[in-house]
Amino acid sequence: MKKSFGAKTLVFPTPVWVVGTYDKDGKPNVMSVAWGGICCSLPPCVAVSLRKATYTYGNIVERKAFTISVPSEAHARQADYIGIVSGRNTDKFADTGLTPVRSALVDAPYIGEFPLVLECRLLNTIEIGLHTQFVGEILDVKAEDSVLGERGLPDIEKVKPILFEPEIKTYHGVGRLLGHAYSIGKKTR
Amino acid sequence: MKKSFGAKTLVFPTPVWVVGTYDKDGKPNVMSVAWGGICCSLPPCVAVSLRKATYTYGNIVERKAFTISVPSEAHARQADYIGIVSGRNTDKFADTGLTPVRSALVDAPYIGEFPLVLECRLLNTIEIGLHTQFVGEILDVKAEDSVLGERGLPDIEKVKPILFEPEIKTYHGVGRLLGHAYSIGKKTR
Repeated sequence: MKKSFGAKTLVFPTPVWVVGTYDKDGKPNVMSVAWGGICCSLPPCVAVSLRKATYTYGNIVERKAFTISVPSEAHARQADYIGIVSGRNTDKFADTGLTPVRSALVDAPYIGEFPLVLECRLLNTIEIGLHTQFVGEILDVKAEDSVLGERGLPDIEKVKPILFEPEIKTYHGVGRLLGHAYSIGKKTR
Repeated sequence: MKKSFGAKTLVFPTPVWVVGTYDKDGKPNVMSVAWGGICCSLPPCVAVSLRKATYTYGNIVERKAFTISVPSEAHARQADYIGIVSGRNTDKFADTGLTPVRSALVDAPYIGEFPLVLECRLLNTIEIGLHTQFVGEILDVKAEDSVLGERGLPDIEKVKPILFEPEIKTYHGVGRLLGHAYSIGKKTR
């Protein structure tokens, strides 16, 4: 029996991604987002949605670029802090001890300590409602050597990304391997 | 040391969501997607991106509605199958034994057996590249009684949603609780 919960942003999984930008004075800033996802394969694009009130919003509008740094489980406290305070009032890199690394490809910084990074050029800005969606073309994906697995690719079990639970408001890790895509379903019939 | 992987849709986590639609003859169809995410809190909206070549694409354009049914770990094989074949050639509900349930709110069916369901009215259609992004306004979220937890809300550890690994192409479950959001970060300073 299904129970109705009304019009809510309640779905699983949603990510914990840290969006990196420069402000007008060149100060690096980061904010944590859960509203986002891949939105196109060609060109490869990722979307993140932000409220206009955020410091990052103005930075993306001005610099036309952002990065996504994917925190690992070990960075859960830092990622949460980055989602609580505003870069308008503090220097989140100084506060957390994380290192801003200037992207060589786009006008935005990423977090040196985080294992997986996407560097994005702003492609499209879409007003939806309270949130504005920024579509970024992914120009490069970078990953730490220590998180590479099969075929030399980043391995989700080594990256250990964080999941956000948007109503109960908890963070979870990644669990066990369930099977291979485009493979396990062949046995359904 | 970070290694560069080029312009790729490689990020974690990405979801496994099953998009439900009716075709022009009223036949229910489902397809699995990994390109999607919440994109606005008010109105509550979720985005999914599809190639024009998919059967679901034409269905959404025609019916202006879709649902998202979130599979549980136990449905991994069915969700994979739903992502392999096209509704143009087969009846995926008949093939998998899953039950199409007509939404009372939007012109689209959802999967009765899946624990968490979003019913969406098409709000916006955004051409990005190979993929078209459909923004759906979430009119209702429904969840099985059996997956409810704290405060009567759907619990990610009971829903057991599936994560898709877009390059190695594997499915993973949800892991352990890492902490509470807007809370664990307060101790960073």
